Amino acid sequence: MKERTEILEETFRKLAEEKKYASLRDLMQTLYPADIAAILSDMPEKLMPAIFRLLPKDLAAETFVEMESDVKETLIRSFSDTELKAVIDEMYMDDAVDLIEEMPANMVRRILTQADADTRKQINEILKYKDDSAGSVMTTEFVALTPEMTAEEAINHIRRTGVDKETINTCYVLDEKYHLLGTVTIRTLILANPQDTCESLMTANAISVGTQDDQETAVQMMSKYDFTSLPVVDAENRMVGIITVDDALDIMEEEASEDIAKMAAITPSDKPYLKTSVFEIWKNRIPWLLLLMISGTFTGIVISRFESALALVPVLTAYIPMMMDTGGNSGSQASVTIIRGLSINDLELKDVFHVMWKEFRVSILCGAALSLANFAKLMVFDRRFINPDITVPVAATICMAMFFTVVIAKLVGCTLPMLAKKAHLDPAVMASPFITTIVDVLSLLVLFTLATSILKIYA
Amino acid sequence: MKERTEILEETFRKLAEEKKYASLRDLMQTLYPADIAAILSDMPEKLMPAIFRLLPKDLAAETFVEMESDVKETLIRSFSDTELKAVIDEMYMDDAVDLIEEMPANMVRRILTQADADTRKQINEILKYKDDSAGSVMTTEFVALTPEMTAEEAINHIRRTGVDKETINTCYVLDEKYHLLGTVTIRTLILANPQDTCESLMTANAISVGTQDDQETAVQMMSKYDFTSLPVVDAENRMVGIITVDDALDIMEEEASEDIAKMAAITPSDKPYLKTSVFEIWKNRIPWLLLLMISGTFTGIVISRFESALALVPVLTAYIPMMMDTGGNSGSQASVTIIRGLSINDLELKDVFHVMWKEFRVSILCGAALSLANFAKLMVFDRRFINPDITVPVAATICMAMFFTVVIAKLVGCTLPMLAKKAHLDPAVMASPFITTIVDVLSLLVLFTLATSILKIYA
Repeated sequence: MKERTEILEETFRKLAEEKKYASLRDLMQTLYPADIAAILSDMPEKLMPAIFRLLPKDLAAETFVEMESDVKETLIRSFSDTELKAVIDEMYMDDAVDLIEEMPANMVRRILTQADADTRKQINEILKYKDDSAGSVMTTEFVALTPEMTAEEAINHIRRTGVDKETINTCYVLDEKYHLLGTVTIRTLILANPQDTCESLMTANAISVGTQDDQETAVQMMSKYDFTSLPVVDAENRMVGIITVDDALDIMEEEASEDIAKMAAITPSDKPYLKTSVFEIWKNRIPWLLLLMISGTFTGIVISRFESALALVPVLTAYIPMMMDTGGNSGSQASVTIIRGLSINDLELKDVFHVMWKEFRVSILCGAALSLANFAKLMVFDRRFINPDITVPVAATICMAMFFTVVIAKLVGCTLPMLAKKAHLDPAVMASPFITTIVDVLSLLVLFTLATSILKIYA
Repeated sequence: MKERTEILEETFRKLAEEKKYASLRDLMQTLYPADIAAILSDMPEKLMPAIFRLLPKDLAAETFVEMESDVKETLIRSFSDTELKAVIDEMYMDDAVDLIEEMPANMVRRILTQADADTRKQINEILKYKDDSAGSVMTTEFVALTPEMTAEEAINHIRRTGVDKETINTCYVLDEKYHLLGTVTIRTLILANPQDTCESLMTANAISVGTQDDQETAVQMMSKYDFTSLPVVDAENRMVGIITVDDALDIMEEEASEDIAKMAAITPSDKPYLKTSVFEIWKNRIPWLLLLMISGTFTGIVISRFESALALVPVLTAYIPMMMDTGGNSGSQASVTIIRGLSINDLELKDVFHVMWKEFRVSILCGAALSLANFAKLMVFDRRFINPDITVPVAATICMAMFFTVVIAKLVGCTLPMLAKKAHLDPAVMASPFITTIVDVLSLLVLFTLATSILKIYA
């Protein structure tokens, strides 16, 4: 893939420099919009708008949509009002809305001025839906049929009006009040007897989402029912748009990236890494680091409290980091599993006791294996090569603390994300870093409690 | 959604118990396969196969595909050979292959015996492709057209043969040796002049993947080009199948779940959590915990080495956990960002220096903010309430160590995943737990080096 793009880029540049615009135009018409966008984005800023202008209207709009927002901005600045209008009129509604959302305010005014009244009205309509709702990602262009139409009439209707619709693979049968009666695929229409009515051909009981529902819910539904487009209805149950499967793929990727960022204690950003400024990256990371650093005060308090006890068995200090890391890793294994399960609907809140019981048994197995392995390592390897002070009671203390730490960590790790969900918070925030901070304190308390009772040392 | 399923389940049970099979059958025909599968899976094992038998052939196959593998197994055990054959013959090729892959060996033999010779041949063909390759997830059923066909002929051809094809939205124009010449959508065919030839209507330069390519590559391509199906070609460039967008959604979800599991040091499993046994969960988690625990030996060695120095300034011990956690969190922020960027193709190997330079600047900002905040906290809060031994040199040592730890953590965190990719290993394995283990050792070394030179204490 890589090389092909580079060769094309070279060819583009050469043709542009030699002013062979007709050949360049012909070449571009054989390429996919995503490829043209990638090549143009890497071109020098002076050449790029000139080459873009060579594209025929529809291909220009499709290519424009595939570009990163900084390239879009450069292009819009170079557009005349007529050019801007041409591109916007050719764009699908959901893409136009995306454009408005990512441009700075002065650009937005210019874009809205150029859009025709009807487009402007629809854009404003969609902009009213809150971020990440189904309404905000839908397109208002879909094929609507009436129940009385025959398959033949329906196909003719699509032929007459379908060119502008984003997808015609699934058509929607609506009553006169725009209520969704059912769906019929183009496949069914083509394979049907031409005289059959849409009502007899359609699948009734159509599945839909509300405009206010979460976009993630919409994608989960499309995945569950294998739809290539999902109808969106308003509060009065009137159909207002569809979400298409290509957007569903993007949304799924975006939501997974967001979850992963949150799990690593980062405020999610929808910009690609290389396009994000150092300051923005810092802003997304530092609040969490500060918060977690300050929660670290509690581990400090515990250790200070037991400082004199620790001075009597200094060898314990050497095992604090290992103990805490093992606790943190055990806890985040559980929390991340549960968070992912909740987010792909494999788990529900009602499973909480089922989950805790399962994690409890897993933690006993993990804790036992780790303690035994650790005991062997301490007595055979560490005592000989690292620290001759390791006695059987010391090793036993460390291993028992390890066992309880793992059990506590797994239970905390599986419970907190479910509590967060119950409290309508995002479970993803309850991932490794928070679990680690809590488990750290608990594991130190366990270690010192066991040390004072087994090794008879007192603070 | 929840309540609706429960009401339906209640109705199913009642109708089955009252032996009102005709009404039950009518009711099921108004539902989606995914819903029927969910309801049947929750039914008592005795009732379930009887209700399943009421489904008409095609709906039965579609419902069967949507079930979890343990329910499928129960059903197959209850099927007569004729029933099994009917379900398999109705299934799409990719679903049949999935079934074979998830069933135990004795079931597989029974299934392959019941499949007709042609189906068996195609299943075996697909099974040869390695796991997670494009070949292993494709279906062999697609609409092939010749370049000379007119739009009208093409539509008639689809009408005659299309019923069995998994998707007819995109058709493929092949030459007599099965080489892919181009694609034409059903939309284009319907909207075209009926006398236009496929050759003139098709988009040439078709994008395809090879059977041996990674399924993730295929999904990234579908997302990039907004395809609803992607052609798969063999080593001789002959078209052998397609990947459909509903499978792409599943693959994307599965790949994100796998990455998330690996980042949390878990061996990924494709079974839902509640269906995975305690022992299997343990097996997926314990090797990593053991490995990480044993790598923890190095932190122990560093602390043991500096034990006597630490005894002179015992207050430092209380800050070791906070230092290590902050280092771990800083490092995993960087590593997780880079891992995700690599996996969604936002980043490439050639960006390595760009990334390091960016992370270096971010780490300076993060390190500075954290050290300053920590210095203020140490002098104002901790000295007064927790530990009166904190002097300015001690606080300065801790904060300088914090600064360097953050810088080192971010650099290690961004570099290791890229090195892993370069070495053809999975970057996701280089996430938080490994970074934390490495950063722990480095941060302790930094702390003790600074402590010995600033506080003049020696091991």
